[in-house]
Amino acid sequence: MVSFGIFDDEFIRGNVPMTKREVRILTLNEGKINDNSIIYDIGAGTGSLSIEAALAAKNGKVYAIEKNIEGVNLIKQNCEKFNVKNIEIINKIAPDGTDNLPVADCIFIGGSGGNLTEILSVSQKKIKLSGRIIINAITIESLNTSFEFLRENKDFKYYSFEVFVSRYNPIGNYHLKKAENPISIIVCEKI
Amino acid sequence: MVSFGIFDDEFIRGNVPMTKREVRILTLNEGKINDNSIIYDIGAGTGSLSIEAALAAKNGKVYAIEKNIEGVNLIKQNCEKFNVKNIEIINKIAPDGTDNLPVADCIFIGGSGGNLTEILSVSQKKIKLSGRIIINAITIESLNTSFEFLRENKDFKYYSFEVFVSRYNPIGNYHLKKAENPISIIVCEKI
Amino acid sequence: MVSFGIFDDEFIRGNVPMTKREVRILTLNEGKINDNSIIYDIGAGTGSLSIEAALAAKNGKVYAIEKNIEGVNLIKQNCEKFNVKNIEIINKIAPDGTDNLPVADCIFIGGSGGNLTEILSVSQKKIKLSGRIIINAITIESLNTSFEFLRENKDFKYYSFEVFVSRYNPIGNYHLKKAENPISIIVCEKI
Amino acid sequence: MVSFGIFDDEFIRGNVPMTKREVRILTLNEGKINDNSIIYDIGAGTGSLSIEAALAAKNGKVYAIEKNIEGVNLIKQNCEKFNVKNIEIINKIAPDGTDNLPVADCIFIGGSGGNLTEILSVSQKKIKLSGRIIINAITIESLNTSFEFLRENKDFKYYSFEVFVSRYNPIGNYHLKKAENPISIIVCEKI
Repeated sequence: MVSFGIFDDEFIRGNVPMTKREVRILTLNEGKINDNSIIYDIGAGTGSLSIEAALAAKNGKVYAIEKNIEGVNLIKQNCEKFNVKNIEIINKIAPDGTDNLPVADCIFIGGSGGNLTEILSVSQKKIKLSGRIIINAITIESLNTSFEFLRENKDFKYYSFEVFVSRYNPIGNYHLKKAENPISIIVCEKI
Repeated sequence: MVSFGIFDDEFIRGNVPMTKREVRILTLNEGKINDNSIIYDIGAGTGSLSIEAALAAKNGKVYAIEKNIEGVNLIKQNCEKFNVKNIEIINKIAPDGTDNLPVADCIFIGGSGGNLTEILSVSQKKIKLSGRIIINAITIESLNTSFEFLRENKDFKYYSFEVFVSRYNPIGNYHLKKAENPISIIVCEKI
Repeated sequence: MVSFGIFDDEFIRGNVPMTKREVRILTLNEGKINDNSIIYDIGAGTGSLSIEAALAAKNGKVYAIEKNIEGVNLIKQNCEKFNVKNIEIINKIAPDGTDNLPVADCIFIGGSGGNLTEILSVSQKKIKLSGRIIINAITIESLNTSFEFLRENKDFKYYSFEVFVSRYNPIGNYHLKKAENPISIIVCEKI
Repeated sequence: MVSFGIFDDEFIRGNVPMTKREVRILTLNEGKINDNSIIYDIGAGTGSLSIEAALAAKNGKVYAIEKNIEGVNLIKQNCEKFNVKNIEIINKIAPDGTDNLPVADCIFIGGSGGNLTEILSVSQKKIKLSGRIIINAITIESLNTSFEFLRENKDFKYYSFEVFVSRYNPIGNYHLKKAENPISIIVCEKI
């Protein structure tokens, strides 16, 4: 079986923000990815999540939607670095670019660029029965919008939590505690 | 591939403390378990980690070492509930009970009952090259003992972090934030 | 000068939820209480915040608004225990009960019982120039409502943060880490 | 009465690490400072804690011990900026420089430069009965050393906790959550 957990500094990153390793592990694991999964990664950024998802869904496909050309280039470079062939990059502002995609087993929503409600509406139509939409929220407003959506759309069951990771950085004989930013993860399953 | 994440309330628990779901996911994922892995679960408690490890290592084996008979009984019940056949329960105070075990791909150390240094010494001998010892520490003293061990034993590379999970509990139209206890995870790889 | 920090178990509590000590310290300190402050404590619960506020505003007054009779009785008992005379208890559902109160230097909003928007509107009218409204939010929806209010009402400057406290509980020779629930604190100053 | 909470960016900081605002508030409040308090600030850094302590102990005195000349200069500049006259700066490596100081009501230990055990031993001799030693630990080893000291020296009662603050940074219509590093606070009272 596949384990997740490529280290953050193994990815080519530029200045694009990246989901940190442990949050990426938890997010990917919630996706219940299998060999043939069809996956969207919305707001793919550096592509770190896409890469690990594509390695897990080895006979499946990842559609990485990213609006910024800087991100698109990083995803390409990371595909090359990790020798990943089953990612299709879509340089659009989501939910644009999803119309012609096959229905999904799993939709990861990282960045939403202010279109979260529209992205959720489109995701609701494109997700398979028992498929999973997994939202990573870094603002209170995205978290609240997600909850509002789930209050109004009863065809999902869901659970959600916040993850706070601090690293113990070895410095001489000491371990200095350094915080990563907390991230909220909302896991929605189509019922 | 296998995903982790059985919900806490699916396990039969009694009053035995249990590693919580997200920490269990991260811990198991760090184990880089494959189909044939030989795994020790030291201080197995309710067996929640053992069960998920055994489901992942479907042709491998999990040795669950637990000193309390209450825990032993819970592990048995959980094996039955989840139809898991590849766990061997060892009712001993670790590191007792490890002598005759085959060398391990992965050793999870949850509870140590005050014997952490001895458990680490034995684990060091029983772990394969490139195998992983993963410690879950809930006290400062266990965390510090682990770091002391790693300072003195240079045949491991390691990284470590603390995970803090808060759940968003839906109550009417609200999501109330409830904290789980923070857990430190130390991942040691034999080099 | 006065320090805050009565221990949680010094208060008479019953089963009413209570703001925990460190959050209470931070909340009270943000109030910039002085000897003569007029303070409202909305959703006063056990009265723990009211008691410490009243001890600080020794020539001032605290109006503790609490809808539940169980809470009202606890506040009375705590006033007696701590020999505090300058708390007036108002057994109403806020914002009811605030009409005839003198304008406030400081308004603490703990529990809002679903009326947070109305409570904020009334607080806006009753708070003095340079006075402070300090909200303790335990749900995402209260936090979001507070931010919406502040987006629409520009006569406040504000800052906000979340506090997560874990205690080191001594057990034998160990210190076990136990989390308190995270609380968001929003500090609004009338400008 | 005095409130704490000067904002971090009001201090002149250079590149010297600084205790963050909310941790500073909690630390100072635990000091139970009064008008005449004699205070040591060991590892004073930028002097942010010293400044707020000196403003609270307006007829008392703060001895700020700092080994780095860069820190010493920042403390001087901050004293000038905040018009504080009751800080004496001691440019030594603690516990050096404490011999001739008057006994203390309150000793804050921030940076220890590897000498924490010695600093604690000296502090034990210099602290008054019912006085308080308050340690801010950012490494596991300092935290563990503090607990070891307290296990061996029974003339203190103590409590301890970790504080994790995340700020809600307003960005357009969003509030982005940003973590500060977690800090452990150990409060020791001489009995």
